[in-house]
Amino acid sequence: MAQSSQAIWTDVEHIRVQAPLIHNITNFVVMNNTANALLALGASPAMVHAPEEVEEFVAISSALVVNIGTLDSTFVAGMKLAMQRAKALGKPVVFDPVGVGATTFRNQVSQELLTLAAPDVIRGNASEIMALAGLNAQTKGVDSLFGSDAAIDAAKRLSSVWSCVVVVSGAVDYIIQGERVAAIANGHPLMAKVTGMGCTATALTGAFAAVNTDYFQAATHAMAVMGIAGELAAEQKSAPGSLQVNFLDALHELTAATITDRLQLTQS
Amino acid sequence: MAQSSQAIWTDVEHIRVQAPLIHNITNFVVMNNTANALLALGASPAMVHAPEEVEEFVAISSALVVNIGTLDSTFVAGMKLAMQRAKALGKPVVFDPVGVGATTFRNQVSQELLTLAAPDVIRGNASEIMALAGLNAQTKGVDSLFGSDAAIDAAKRLSSVWSCVVVVSGAVDYIIQGERVAAIANGHPLMAKVTGMGCTATALTGAFAAVNTDYFQAATHAMAVMGIAGELAAEQKSAPGSLQVNFLDALHELTAATITDRLQLTQS
Amino acid sequence: MAQSSQAIWTDVEHIRVQAPLIHNITNFVVMNNTANALLALGASPAMVHAPEEVEEFVAISSALVVNIGTLDSTFVAGMKLAMQRAKALGKPVVFDPVGVGATTFRNQVSQELLTLAAPDVIRGNASEIMALAGLNAQTKGVDSLFGSDAAIDAAKRLSSVWSCVVVVSGAVDYIIQGERVAAIANGHPLMAKVTGMGCTATALTGAFAAVNTDYFQAATHAMAVMGIAGELAAEQKSAPGSLQVNFLDALHELTAATITDRLQLTQS
Repeated sequence: MAQSSQAIWTDVEHIRVQAPLIHNITNFVVMNNTANALLALGASPAMVHAPEEVEEFVAISSALVVNIGTLDSTFVAGMKLAMQRAKALGKPVVFDPVGVGATTFRNQVSQELLTLAAPDVIRGNASEIMALAGLNAQTKGVDSLFGSDAAIDAAKRLSSVWSCVVVVSGAVDYIIQGERVAAIANGHPLMAKVTGMGCTATALTGAFAAVNTDYFQAATHAMAVMGIAGELAAEQKSAPGSLQVNFLDALHELTAATITDRLQLTQS
Repeated sequence: MAQSSQAIWTDVEHIRVQAPLIHNITNFVVMNNTANALLALGASPAMVHAPEEVEEFVAISSALVVNIGTLDSTFVAGMKLAMQRAKALGKPVVFDPVGVGATTFRNQVSQELLTLAAPDVIRGNASEIMALAGLNAQTKGVDSLFGSDAAIDAAKRLSSVWSCVVVVSGAVDYIIQGERVAAIANGHPLMAKVTGMGCTATALTGAFAAVNTDYFQAATHAMAVMGIAGELAAEQKSAPGSLQVNFLDALHELTAATITDRLQLTQS
Repeated sequence: MAQSSQAIWTDVEHIRVQAPLIHNITNFVVMNNTANALLALGASPAMVHAPEEVEEFVAISSALVVNIGTLDSTFVAGMKLAMQRAKALGKPVVFDPVGVGATTFRNQVSQELLTLAAPDVIRGNASEIMALAGLNAQTKGVDSLFGSDAAIDAAKRLSSVWSCVVVVSGAVDYIIQGERVAAIANGHPLMAKVTGMGCTATALTGAFAAVNTDYFQAATHAMAVMGIAGELAAEQKSAPGSLQVNFLDALHELTAATITDRLQLTQS
């Protein structure tokens, strides 16, 4: 087994043994799916957004995942408190700026959250990463108008400004931290036909960050596992309803051998 | 291929090629399903409800779908702003009065929304259409106590009052605009055992309205595609968990030939 | 057929014939699943939380299910009004204290709700039941750190204090009302890998309470049906994505013979 496959598998085993509690403040569309993906991987998910309790909840969690997909003022208040508390406690924070660039509100909230408590990992599609880097990228709602390679420079800039790992999802996923760049070519085009697969990638990154303090590695491993489980599912049946079901099964059934056989990782 | 099958297929192809952005303000129960149904059909869904951003979001969208299933004051505020803005911009608005007739709040909100910004299409079950037409129909929560044919007169009245297309869902779906009436006999009884199939019909109507400005046709085509995909799914396995999965697969795999073979459309 | 299997089947038949309207104020993660589980069993679900309408809605419903999984101030306001109204009208109330013990907010809200309107049935995992009984039990977010038998004494205390039925879910489910104790050994470990199976058990309890005023029996029957449908699903395919789908199919296809063959019920 290659070194990188082994490192991914070690993280998966740690997640399965430790079942880290992952605190999610995420959107209504994907709450069920991302909770199920975290469970299928071996983590223990919780969705908790009320300002009255997020600080206390983040304190008992192993990572915080914040996703602005269906944000409103109540959720934003919870996000701010949770992110600040997570930073103060040294818990990993993963941020998904869904749809940033589409509205002024999303842009403002994203900038406020970053300024208040810079996350350890930011994951988005190319449009989102470019918009977050201030490039006035065009977006199409929550979908990207660009391939992931178009956002590599934006990702490097974001990584430098906020001292964090940045993931650009796409046909190839890029994971960037300063000069470190990893590229994952796993995955399947049909994954774009299932809502919230990007949000699921973000949630799984939280689980890996809970067991691996090298967040560049954690994000890389999460994207690899996403892509491999996605292609396994798409090969079962090439249709989106089935993909969603088979993806969860594949995550649950993931083995070291499958990772070794399928991993398409390039590091530079 | 008959003319009407061809017209449905043309719309499906336009949706698949254009992937129109459909802005949904909908209920918590169905957000995942309706997003997945829109993706499976070929559209690009987004769920955005915050009053701070709905006006900006509707401006970049190709249609607005408003569904009051789990309404509360925050969502209602977003619905009002979005519907007014959509009307001002000439974007199609599709309205689903889930559970109207069950509570005074639902009745009041529905009347306020209609008065503020009459939608282009209203879709509901018989109880909802009758209640919305002021007939004091009995309802059973979000389920209808009547067959769809019982609501044809109510639908005609609604269509006349608000100058819009009205769809009554049921074993037969009726699409009504003034004197135009279409009836779709496709579908399967098991669809009533999966939550939110009506809401999905409404969301798909938004996608068809985004590519066909004859909203009577758009609504008719949406109901035909719903019914055909539903019966294909039910024939795969006659059980509700499987139906939800197979329905998405069927939408994704829909062909012109299947529409021609199965379409049960009567126009008068 | 044994007496207890017959009694379960009688309730199932009543649910299928009457399709009782079950009013749920529940969490965002499980709204779709619990609605679908109620439909698959034969009930008519509705999710309604707005303070403006819950009192009117509970009046037309046959049971109220309250679940604090993703509580916030808006939902809590709706829960209070709905529970008080249900009690005043003599409608059964089933309460699921998801994650109680994890935060002060959850503890306070739970105590407020119990004091305001003691429910007829409380269902939780061992950690939740122990926390609710004031035992300062450790929790891990929304997952239990204890087996269900560890919470039997806590359940008895809770049952006595609030004069209600208490269900502790786990590998064995305990149903307790004063001196009455039932134990259900049905189910499958994989059910813990699907989010919201506990919440679904609570929702189904609402359906059984709508047709059986002996709430101890209603809760016992609900847990038996959950466990049997869960093991049928897990035997179809031992993977969590498939389990969620097959569970709904199994609920829909449940027969008297299956219940008789599989029921593992001990009463004392």
